[in-house]
Amino acid sequence: MDGLMPFEGETEDLPRMATTGTLYGVGMGPGDPDLLTVKARRILERAPVLVHFCKQGKRGNARGIADAILRDPSREMALAYPYTTELHPEHPDYVSALATFYDEASDKLAAHLGAGRDVAILSEGDPFFYGSFMHLWRRLKDRFPVDVVPGVTGMSGCWTRAGTPITWGDDVLTVLPATLSFDTLVERLRGTDAAVVMKLGRHLPKVRKALTEAGLLSRAVYVERGTMPGERVIPLEVKADDDAPYFSMVLVPGEGRRP
Amino acid sequence: MDGLMPFEGETEDLPRMATTGTLYGVGMGPGDPDLLTVKARRILERAPVLVHFCKQGKRGNARGIADAILRDPSREMALAYPYTTELHPEHPDYVSALATFYDEASDKLAAHLGAGRDVAILSEGDPFFYGSFMHLWRRLKDRFPVDVVPGVTGMSGCWTRAGTPITWGDDVLTVLPATLSFDTLVERLRGTDAAVVMKLGRHLPKVRKALTEAGLLSRAVYVERGTMPGERVIPLEVKADDDAPYFSMVLVPGEGRRP
Repeated sequence: MDGLMPFEGETEDLPRMATTGTLYGVGMGPGDPDLLTVKARRILERAPVLVHFCKQGKRGNARGIADAILRDPSREMALAYPYTTELHPEHPDYVSALATFYDEASDKLAAHLGAGRDVAILSEGDPFFYGSFMHLWRRLKDRFPVDVVPGVTGMSGCWTRAGTPITWGDDVLTVLPATLSFDTLVERLRGTDAAVVMKLGRHLPKVRKALTEAGLLSRAVYVERGTMPGERVIPLEVKADDDAPYFSMVLVPGEGRRP
Repeated sequence: MDGLMPFEGETEDLPRMATTGTLYGVGMGPGDPDLLTVKARRILERAPVLVHFCKQGKRGNARGIADAILRDPSREMALAYPYTTELHPEHPDYVSALATFYDEASDKLAAHLGAGRDVAILSEGDPFFYGSFMHLWRRLKDRFPVDVVPGVTGMSGCWTRAGTPITWGDDVLTVLPATLSFDTLVERLRGTDAAVVMKLGRHLPKVRKALTEAGLLSRAVYVERGTMPGERVIPLEVKADDDAPYFSMVLVPGEGRRP
């Protein structure tokens, strides 16, 4: 019904439905709670159902950003990703487990939305820039009202804390997931003016090799936990290969026009 | 002195200096004032000197976003770009006029900072992602304390309002200024999974041709004034060539992994 009054006589054969809730995708920004937008903060304070993703037995990263705001655990719902040891993200078994996970999660949210309760999904950075929100959004967007709140991306947080503009003048910026093959990384890094490499994890040695091959190693900066406690900013050349946590990325700042 | 007490006897030959002010680069986000960060809003409410860039005789774009917050014109300083009719951004006369403009503007801000007054520069989107703030930052960062506040980028605002995630799974994103040559545009668009083309202006016909050459035209979305009054979202294929204002861009959403 969505706020429209039914025509006279139409209601008798239909169940009485409340207005459905709205699905909010809330960009949580790069980590510092002060970098939430005014709109995101308002939705977090008011929404009756707050959803975050997490790994089994661990705290969700997006949820941690909201610590200063969220005091009522009864509003919260954690969605734990299916546990996998070392399956490649494109392995059919993993894709199938993930699809089932997103289907079941969407059903849970649909029950709240259908009962008229707004649901806010906490999304690291910006909801439409990588991330898991999009997989629930895709399953629910044609059935319920949707409002996506863009956020400061993790990469903006990182280049800010590294103290370096990422693009000047007519610089081209290329954003690359570290999960790509060595050859693809080199091909896309060659000829770009500026680059951001995300999702480092165990791929850091490959990324370092690709940056070297593309002639960009000496300009590369490694940033870990940008805008968060435990933040670390160092030239990639002096960073050891063995430890790149989830919240880390490599930046290659542009060197464009500077009047 | 910067807050340190002088040694006894040292003060007599030195002028008494107050602590210097801090230079803030404030990301104003994509246009909707609700998309300011909590930190940006706090700085705008408190800083004694608020600076924005504008064209001669026109209102600054970043300044417009702050309308709901700023009520005291005595705090404000407008920096009007040198007037040029049709000089190319790389023409030596234009580069020289801009350099003089940034030098003189930096001197004005340094006077406030040296007198202990904080100065906040209003920057569209994110201060370290293209934009003019970086040219003042470069001139002042070694003389005064600096605090840059990252913001939601214009492109995040645009893909949010277009209702389309920009990157899924392992998608590569390429951000391109429309000012680049046709050949460079085609070269960088080919093989990318997702793209954002900024600074359209009079370059829209060239951008359309480059997207066609790279096989991406049918996926391209044109967004004008995203998150602002007068917003417009249409497929680029149905957009006329002749009118691409400052606040417009072309998006090519990625089509990566969707379990």
